This record gives sequence, structure tokens and C-alpha cells, in this order.
Amino acid sequence: MSQTPIINRLLVIGLGLIGGSLAKAARDRGVCAEVIGVARGKETCRLALELGVVDRVFESLDPLASELADDDVVVIAVPTLAVAGVLEQVAKSLSPAVTITDVASVKGSVVSDARRIYGALPPQFVPGHPIAGAEKSGITAVNPRLYEGYKVVLTPLQETGANHLNRIRQLWSAVGAELHEMSVAEHDEVLAATSHLPHMLAYSLVDTLAGMRENREIFRYAAGGFRDFTRIAGSDPLMWHDIALANREALMAVLNELTEHIDSLRRAIADGDSDYLMETFSRAKEARDHFADMVGE
Amino acid sequence: MSQTPIINRLLVIGLGLIGGSLAKAARDRGVCAEVIGVARGKETCRLALELGVVDRVFESLDPLASELADDDVVVIAVPTLAVAGVLEQVAKSLSPAVTITDVASVKGSVVSDARRIYGALPPQFVPGHPIAGAEKSGITAVNPRLYEGYKVVLTPLQETGANHLNRIRQLWSAVGAELHEMSVAEHDEVLAATSHLPHMLAYSLVDTLAGMRENREIFRYAAGGFRDFTRIAGSDPLMWHDIALANREALMAVLNELTEHIDSLRRAIADGDSDYLMETFSRAKEARDHFADMVGE
Repeated sequence: MSQTPIINRLLVIGLGLIGGSLAKAARDRGVCAEVIGVARGKETCRLALELGVVDRVFESLDPLASELADDDVVVIAVPTLAVAGVLEQVAKSLSPAVTITDVASVKGSVVSDARRIYGALPPQFVPGHPIAGAEKSGITAVNPRLYEGYKVVLTPLQETGANHLNRIRQLWSAVGAELHEMSVAEHDEVLAATSHLPHMLAYSLVDTLAGMRENREIFRYAAGGFRDFTRIAGSDPLMWHDIALANREALMAVLNELTEHIDSLRRAIADGDSDYLMETFSRAKEARDHFADMVGE
Repeated sequence: MSQTPIINRLLVIGLGLIGGSLAKAARDRGVCAEVIGVARGKETCRLALELGVVDRVFESLDPLASELADDDVVVIAVPTLAVAGVLEQVAKSLSPAVTITDVASVKGSVVSDARRIYGALPPQFVPGHPIAGAEKSGITAVNPRLYEGYKVVLTPLQETGANHLNRIRQLWSAVGAELHEMSVAEHDEVLAATSHLPHMLAYSLVDTLAGMRENREIFRYAAGGFRDFTRIAGSDPLMWHDIALANREALMAVLNELTEHIDSLRRAIADGDSDYLMETFSRAKEARDHFADMVGE
């Protein structure tokens, strides 16, 4: 599986599921001459070496910053709202020739963080988002095949340097991802609808049911559909806290549309409006079946 | 797999996924001396014979009613709101010695239908509900292993005859189901929370997204969590129309609790209430993980 390295050094800051899986995938496939990790906490650092996620690992960026140069790539893989703090460190010490990308689920907040910190969007920064992930999290969940066949969306801006964009494209392609490009605004709207909103709903549903008197019985009799439906409520709370706040505007817009829809459905149930229910359920089934065909289910 | 028949004749009225799968499971396992089906439509009747779902099939109950006697079992497997119509026919023509059960997802409406039609709840009627099912429907989706390891809830009442209850218990056990008993009210409340509410949400979410301007992009970038989440929106619209109306009271109660919860979550997102979000998501994750342990995921 090894190949001629297309990147010199790859530095991954944050060795959770997303960052750790990218580091290990790149390392296993020989995409980079060296894979270096930065992680908070001695235990994560120890595991990163033990699990073969990185070649070297540090608890902070400081000893490394001056070492990095042209052809090196830095991936910021921390929760969305922690990206700004890392960018501040990076802005102080990294050469403008180093390519920087991130993996945050919200692109608008990260781009405005970068603009604020650098004064203007630096050409070296390529905003990105791998649409992968699972309800598992942390370095012990690392999977070097996580990105195979999965979509990675890059949202380059006018200011983004073509050489930097290409380097990030090569990195993701090399670990098996399918590359897409969108504008920052489109990304945040589409993800609010398809990912952020369903996560809010799943958390809300599970928390509501858990708070009910008969919650033991409820969970005991929950069938297949419910399990699928609530699996995403097992996702990392901090990650989703950050996403909800960072993508507040787009999320509120779809949340408002959905709650209006639920209100109409409630009224139809209360009023026994047979036609409304049949039409709504049939239209949703048709959309769902069409979607299932699209993704080849 | 064949055994000594424990039931003489099994008559299944309605040969959709639920009724057809029970008929074929009973037939394949030799649970009954004979399996007879009643289905609307020549094509379903033809398929029922061709797929080996039944030994004999009729388009109406009329030619059969006088044939059935002691030790025979009738399973009413039509959509919830169609049960009353079948019970009316059955009440006119069937011997009180024949055991009758149903498979409707709501038990309160079916029990009050039976009371109304018979004047009092007849000892021969055992309300039941197999908690199985899939987004597929119809006789072509029939699966004789559908009930293996799945829960079937019976909700017998004081009036229910012990001999009739035992016969229905034996039938479900013989096709591999795990039997549970609950009161009618508890069943309807628990199912409203774990099944009926998630289905309403899934329909509402898919219909909302399908109505958005960017719906093509939305469905294209939808990832794994979304797919799991919306799979149940592919379920039969008529079945869910009936359930929403038949279990209106319990469903409205949980729907109200959920919409209050979503409203609080919306306010927290709008206000940037970090603590509320972390607490809610963490509590939901804990409940979900606990649930996953319970069901051995």
C-alpha cells in the first residue's frame, strides 16, 4: 500500500477520531515522509505511538513550529470552537509556505476566525470538512480506512493559494476520500440540514424519553427504527456543542422550518386531518425512496 | 423444522408484510395443520400461493367463516383503522370458540372497537402487537424469519379467556418471537414514545428537507447518520396514518413534550447557552449509551 511520499511532513493537531484516523491512514499508506501529532494529555500521546497513529508526538506545538517549512502540511483537527486558539498559535510561528487545513464541521466560523487572526484570509489556509464520523470518538476509535469512499468537502476562497489547495486535495485523495468543493455558505446550509439538524433532533428525542417516568420500559421496547434514529445521539457532546454554536444562523433557519412542519403535523393529528397525514407521509416516503436510490441503498 | 401442529387452522386476514410473514413462518414450521389467507386483490392472492405463504387463499371471509371451529385461530393483520371493519364481519359469523388476535400497532383503539362491536370484550379476542417491521411492505417483502428473536407484546384484559391467551402465546413462540405482556394503556404510551413519535419526526424531517430549495444538494451530501435517521420515513404511509390517528392521545402527549424540549434547545442555541447545550447533549449521550448496553449493541 506504500507509495512515494507526496507530502514531506504532516502535522496533525488533535488526535481524536477524525485527526487520528487521517494521521494513521497517511502513515499506513506512506503518503508523507513523516507524520507528527500534537495532542493534549500524556495518555493520548502514549496511545498515538502505541497504536502507530504517528511517528512522533508532542503535547504542544511550540517545539515544532520552527521545524516546519515548504511542502509541510498542518491539519487542525480540534473541536470547531477550539480552532481559533490553534490558529492563533499557528499564526505566530508558522512559515507562510506551510499549507494549513482544518476538519471542522462548520466552515463560516473557522473562516472568520482565520480572517480575524491573520487580518486577512491567508493563502496557505484551505478550509475543509470530511463528512465522515461515527458515534465513537477519541484516539481508541481511530480507523485508517475511515475516509475510504467518504466525501470530503473543501471550501476554498478567492484568497486561497492554488498550490495549497492542490496539496490538500492530494492528501485527501491519497487516503481514499472523494473530493467535493462548495462555497462556505452552501456548505454550512447543506450541513445544517443534513447533519446538524438531525443531531439536534436525536439528542432532543433521547433526552425527552430519558426524562419520562416509564423510561426503563421505553428503552426496553424500543425497536430497530428507534435504534437507528438515536444512534447519532451517542456522538461527542463537545463536538456538537461547538457545531450548534458555530453554525447557529444556518441551524436556526432549518430548525425553524422543521418546528413549523412539526406544528402543522401536530394540528393535523389533533384535528384528525386524514388527507394531510396521507399526503405528508406519502410525499416524505417518495423523497426518502428517491434519496435511497440516489445513494444506491 | 416441521413439528406436530399445535393449531388446527390458522386464518390470516391481510397478507402484507406482518400477516404474510406470520402465515409463512407458521406454514414453513408446521405450526398449523393448514394456513389460510384472506387478501384483497387477485394479484396478492396469486402471489400468496406462488410464494408459499398460505395453503389456500380467498378474497373475502364469507366462504370461510362457517368452516372455522374450536382450536382454529384468526389473525387480523390489516392496518389499524381497518381492524373494526374486519371485526364486524368476524363478529357476525365466527364461533365464539375460535381464537382471534390482531397485530395492530395501537391497542386502545382496537380494544374499544371490539367492545363496541361485540357489546362487551369477547373472551376469544387477544389483542397483540409484534414489534417487528421494516420500511418494506406488502406480500413481496414477506420474510418467514421476521419474528425470530423479536418482541411480541400481548395486552390481555380481565375478560380475555386463558385458553385463548395460551393459544396465541403458543403461536408466537412457535415462530420464534419473544413474548411480553403489558396493559393496553402502557403499551400505547410506550409505543407512542419509542416508535410512533420517531416515525412522525422522520417523516417531518424528510418532508421539510425535500421542500427546501437546495434539496438535491442536501440529499447528495447526507451522511450515514442522516440515512439511519430517515430510513423509517420509507415506511407505509397508510399504516402510519392509521397509527397517528388511532393513538392520537398518547402520541400528542409525547409530541408535546418533545416540541417543548426542542423549543428550549432552540432558545439555548439562539442565546449561546453553552452550559445548557453541554448538559443536554451529555445527558442524552449517557442515556443512549446506557440503552445501547441494554440491548447489547
